[in-house]
Amino acid sequence: MSSTFGRLLRVTTFGESHGPAVGAILDGCPPGIPLTAEVVQRDLDRRRPGQSAVTTQRKEPDKVELLSGVFEGVTTGASIALVVRSVDARPADYANLKDLFRPGHADYTYWKKYGVRDYRGSGRSSGRETVGRVAAGAVARLILSSIGARVQAYTVQVGDIVAEKRDLGFAEENPVRVPDREKAPLMERAILAAREAGDSLGGVVEIRADCVPAGLGDPVMDKLEAVLAWGLMSIGAVKGFEVGDGFAASRRRGSEMNDRMTPGGFASNHAGGILGGISTGEPIVCRIAVKPPSSIAIPQKTVDVEGKERDFAISGRHDPCLCPRVVPVAEAMTCLALADALLRQRAIEPWVKKLEDPLHKARA
Amino acid sequence: MSSTFGRLLRVTTFGESHGPAVGAILDGCPPGIPLTAEVVQRDLDRRRPGQSAVTTQRKEPDKVELLSGVFEGVTTGASIALVVRSVDARPADYANLKDLFRPGHADYTYWKKYGVRDYRGSGRSSGRETVGRVAAGAVARLILSSIGARVQAYTVQVGDIVAEKRDLGFAEENPVRVPDREKAPLMERAILAAREAGDSLGGVVEIRADCVPAGLGDPVMDKLEAVLAWGLMSIGAVKGFEVGDGFAASRRRGSEMNDRMTPGGFASNHAGGILGGISTGEPIVCRIAVKPPSSIAIPQKTVDVEGKERDFAISGRHDPCLCPRVVPVAEAMTCLALADALLRQRAIEPWVKKLEDPLHKARA
Amino acid sequence: MSSTFGRLLRVTTFGESHGPAVGAILDGCPPGIPLTAEVVQRDLDRRRPGQSAVTTQRKEPDKVELLSGVFEGVTTGASIALVVRSVDARPADYANLKDLFRPGHADYTYWKKYGVRDYRGSGRSSGRETVGRVAAGAVARLILSSIGARVQAYTVQVGDIVAEKRDLGFAEENPVRVPDREKAPLMERAILAAREAGDSLGGVVEIRADCVPAGLGDPVMDKLEAVLAWGLMSIGAVKGFEVGDGFAASRRRGSEMNDRMTPGGFASNHAGGILGGISTGEPIVCRIAVKPPSSIAIPQKTVDVEGKERDFAISGRHDPCLCPRVVPVAEAMTCLALADALLRQRAIEPWVKKLEDPLHKARA
Amino acid sequence: MSSTFGRLLRVTTFGESHGPAVGAILDGCPPGIPLTAEVVQRDLDRRRPGQSAVTTQRKEPDKVELLSGVFEGVTTGASIALVVRSVDARPADYANLKDLFRPGHADYTYWKKYGVRDYRGSGRSSGRETVGRVAAGAVARLILSSIGARVQAYTVQVGDIVAEKRDLGFAEENPVRVPDREKAPLMERAILAAREAGDSLGGVVEIRADCVPAGLGDPVMDKLEAVLAWGLMSIGAVKGFEVGDGFAASRRRGSEMNDRMTPGGFASNHAGGILGGISTGEPIVCRIAVKPPSSIAIPQKTVDVEGKERDFAISGRHDPCLCPRVVPVAEAMTCLALADALLRQRAIEPWVKKLEDPLHKARA
Repeated sequence: MSSTFGRLLRVTTFGESHGPAVGAILDGCPPGIPLTAEVVQRDLDRRRPGQSAVTTQRKEPDKVELLSGVFEGVTTGASIALVVRSVDARPADYANLKDLFRPGHADYTYWKKYGVRDYRGSGRSSGRETVGRVAAGAVARLILSSIGARVQAYTVQVGDIVAEKRDLGFAEENPVRVPDREKAPLMERAILAAREAGDSLGGVVEIRADCVPAGLGDPVMDKLEAVLAWGLMSIGAVKGFEVGDGFAASRRRGSEMNDRMTPGGFASNHAGGILGGISTGEPIVCRIAVKPPSSIAIPQKTVDVEGKERDFAISGRHDPCLCPRVVPVAEAMTCLALADALLRQRAIEPWVKKLEDPLHKARA
Repeated sequence: MSSTFGRLLRVTTFGESHGPAVGAILDGCPPGIPLTAEVVQRDLDRRRPGQSAVTTQRKEPDKVELLSGVFEGVTTGASIALVVRSVDARPADYANLKDLFRPGHADYTYWKKYGVRDYRGSGRSSGRETVGRVAAGAVARLILSSIGARVQAYTVQVGDIVAEKRDLGFAEENPVRVPDREKAPLMERAILAAREAGDSLGGVVEIRADCVPAGLGDPVMDKLEAVLAWGLMSIGAVKGFEVGDGFAASRRRGSEMNDRMTPGGFASNHAGGILGGISTGEPIVCRIAVKPPSSIAIPQKTVDVEGKERDFAISGRHDPCLCPRVVPVAEAMTCLALADALLRQRAIEPWVKKLEDPLHKARA
Repeated sequence: MSSTFGRLLRVTTFGESHGPAVGAILDGCPPGIPLTAEVVQRDLDRRRPGQSAVTTQRKEPDKVELLSGVFEGVTTGASIALVVRSVDARPADYANLKDLFRPGHADYTYWKKYGVRDYRGSGRSSGRETVGRVAAGAVARLILSSIGARVQAYTVQVGDIVAEKRDLGFAEENPVRVPDREKAPLMERAILAAREAGDSLGGVVEIRADCVPAGLGDPVMDKLEAVLAWGLMSIGAVKGFEVGDGFAASRRRGSEMNDRMTPGGFASNHAGGILGGISTGEPIVCRIAVKPPSSIAIPQKTVDVEGKERDFAISGRHDPCLCPRVVPVAEAMTCLALADALLRQRAIEPWVKKLEDPLHKARA
Repeated sequence: MSSTFGRLLRVTTFGESHGPAVGAILDGCPPGIPLTAEVVQRDLDRRRPGQSAVTTQRKEPDKVELLSGVFEGVTTGASIALVVRSVDARPADYANLKDLFRPGHADYTYWKKYGVRDYRGSGRSSGRETVGRVAAGAVARLILSSIGARVQAYTVQVGDIVAEKRDLGFAEENPVRVPDREKAPLMERAILAAREAGDSLGGVVEIRADCVPAGLGDPVMDKLEAVLAWGLMSIGAVKGFEVGDGFAASRRRGSEMNDRMTPGGFASNHAGGILGGISTGEPIVCRIAVKPPSSIAIPQKTVDVEGKERDFAISGRHDPCLCPRVVPVAEAMTCLALADALLRQRAIEPWVKKLEDPLHKARA
């Protein structure tokens, strides 16, 4: 397996759904950044299960411990270990699934790849693995904050319902995390109806990064959008990624797609804040497609390890729609990717010729 | 910059549009694989400009030299250097663009990031950079061939025209590389009309990998779809990536999306051949959104390095739609990602418990 | 900072001397390897402080917890988190050293590099950091055991006293870990005398790996000796590395140094089991120079952060000679390097032409 | 194979002894650094064969071509390809060695590892591979120069003759590259006598880096001495590495080894300019043990691929002592390691609290 993301700022996660703990080591963090467990906890609390009716009812306090890399309240430059003990682990719940390959899950592929499978609540392939990502992402967010950049994700689609507004303040005030006051209750109802029907819903999460300076990203292989895609597509259940106009760009003409530059700055942002793999200084906007959760109550058929057909139904505490809980994870991966790109840019900056940027005035 | 892709099989590319040469070093290739310049040339010829009316008319023979890593016709395990000399370089053509930031291009971001910009035909951010990718991808393709796997990409959308058929044999017989006999001429005409109008068109390219064994991919950070996304999103002009149902999955319910497993194998492939970041053994299917080329003949306005507004028009030899030429590059990145995943799987396989796979019989 | 070692098998350590915990994540371990906390504990117990009069009297039980990557007693292929809580932390002991730059220590360089310094017992630069290495190394040792290879380190020099015998069984029976029954008591006495005098002694540790198959190592940059040197030189207090005849080779002639090959195998092993960066199948033998511990009771002079001259004396629980405790750490780094090289070789092996090895018969 | 060294500044080499070309790609170089082929050529000329009677008589002009990454005389931030065509390749000379395993060479291990061996002049394991290192190192040297740091290597021992002086200016004025006017002719004579006798001599090369700022190096795994050891031990024929007092430190007491810090700076430099894996600001001094060349004219016995005993004698153009030619390669690897560490330090520096360094005044 490969549990590390990043080049200079590297997160390595560990932990299985019903194992004793989950967490991460974040290595390469700059020194001198004020850091406490409380700051990390804030992001973890946003990810925690059981926050509302639209998420799983598993109860995990997810209290993080900061085991290293901090001294007298600031980062030291050393690797930062972040550990969360599991409390509500119920491995026995999964005994009946032991020999089954649940459709849509990684049961068959893990079994096939490793010859051994931790069947307790999906083991390593569980969404619980993202605890370490979110904890590390909280530190990455502080690095970005230190230069004034910020990242927010929010749900923009649930099933067929599409958000039209981007009222970002409102996004954190409703359980679906949608920035649209009108669509929020519709989406919530759709999710509850799906759960009622024993089914689940997909959706789309948008991520927006503001005040990211121009110049981040490392062509040609670590273009900013490529690294964002890598990080975001590594989140379970994500089936697609796009930046700026994304797939809609495929239907445009060049004359429509090109963002005109004016003495007052960029006149539009079809590019989503990235040109040639490098940030333009405009907001970075990308979206990910989240599939409907595979764990549904509706009875399904599948095969077991011996190839026999089996009926089964999942009766657990599952999310009927993943979007609200993917939001903090998507933010975390975005923060990690951007903070890493920032460090990489800082590495060469002393050699970059200082030029007067004609767009700076426009932005100031 | 960061010009390397891969972990065990690593390609590092070099070269600018109008510099003396472009190419790559491929490191980590297994020994004993028959390799000649001719095999690499075959893929390069498919990428070469000037093949038809729907692509740029720049004339580059793009003859590859194999400078190392091969002895008596087989790979030795050493790094393989692949170099292509540029012939039709015309740096002077670009002198008038020297101080301009062309909209949609990386002119501003390179200038901002590096403080210096090779303005000759986009320099490093040119599509010409992909020569090294395609050359290295040809070797990766041989690694995959050695276990019977194969990769093919093709255009499935140009502007608003969507291919419905997947006649893969036909894809290489038409200039648009679309696997649909009815749509091919429509797309070709649309491209020529766009060029005629001084404009350009976007599109979608689909990549399909067949006979990829189950078990490839390294969760949780190097999930197969994440690495494919990384590689494919690092190609210039690509604005989106999706695997299997992709963004359409966001509109599905779990009961529709889950691919049922039967004693006869998977009953569907909404997942696109990957579950939990690991290949299932089903065909891997993904798509990328390609934006319309930014170089258009229609006069545009922009600013120069001093912030002054400038009118300009590009009168060059540009692609009116990138899809046909992205096809071999997308194949190359896919081959590189899959071959790398294959090597990584081989590394642990001696320790994997050999299990009888109930789906094998179905597939055999 | 950079706390990761390895390519396919990657250890990332964390923890400071007087912080709440130390440990590591080992990522990339093959699945199916029987692993328990007890096996890891065995190696940790060999590293533990307070084992004899010749080491520090700090009392740490160093009980390891295995937090992930193991299911039903075997590794799953997932990242393995190994955590050891600190018990005998006494940060207050170090308050008086807060503003001093102790000579021979990393106080000045950490302060200079990071602008902040965890002064409690050297913080991250403490030997306590090696707990994570030893824990991860214990797992790497199991990977090697699975193919019959084994690694042992032992003290071969303390101050001016040089071991002549290689009675490896005896090495673990004496506190200095020297494989020479005659020299062991002399070394022990020398160490105690140095402590008595408030001083400390340097020494040399030799590492020997047996039954390592021919073919491990990745030229030209990851030659086996280069990676071993990297890993072993990253241990605190190590000032030199050599393989085979090492520095003595600089005084030899080619006719003496070349190991003749015969139908019965290699006639000698001046090379130390590595030729051209690849293992020969002979025992791998290397040595590291260990400096005398910098923490001595003799009063010293130094400067403080304000540049004022200061007298000070260290009155702590320090090792008078590091060799006995470096032994398990050197084994750990060697196991990690060799296991990584083994995995990398396995990755390409399916493509390696199977040849009849004329030396195999000799070895069999 | 693995032909890449470095993290942010990464060199990847290619090429075999008697193949068409050798060279490297250097990726991650900062932009804005004046660079011409002439500057690179200067270092290559120092490495070139045939410069004096004490080196091989093979005649290679080794003219470097700069294929990318430079525009209008300065680096652009893009990957830099450096290629040297081989002229005096005589693969036929090696036909008689085709099936032999030459003692001391990598013939057996390459054959065993890869199942195929480029037997022409050692193929990839030839010293000719270092052309790419030296070319890339020349660029790394420029990065260091931009902050005033400089690196010089020189021979300090040949066989039993040890240099006592460090007259660095003289080192480049004699063919052995020894900084000792008295010992130079003795060493030269010893080398010629060894050649006359059909034999070869080992030696020691010392590397010294001046004006390296304090703060470079990334504990705990990428400590500066560890990365230097990695880079220098990856040079063929190097069997040992030490920094500062190195192996002599093993015979010292702590009270002798600790470098006292005074208001006027460090009073000594037993540490060799590195403490805790981070540069102190003092000169970095390390040494490598170079084995006698394995290619000797004296008839030897060995076995062939079928295990038959064979007599053979090497009648080629070989170096009787490698030290003079290892000198520029050791400089190159040191420059690459230091420049990489410099970039990594620059990456975090904006977050490092600016402190008044009490030792600065002493140095100023």
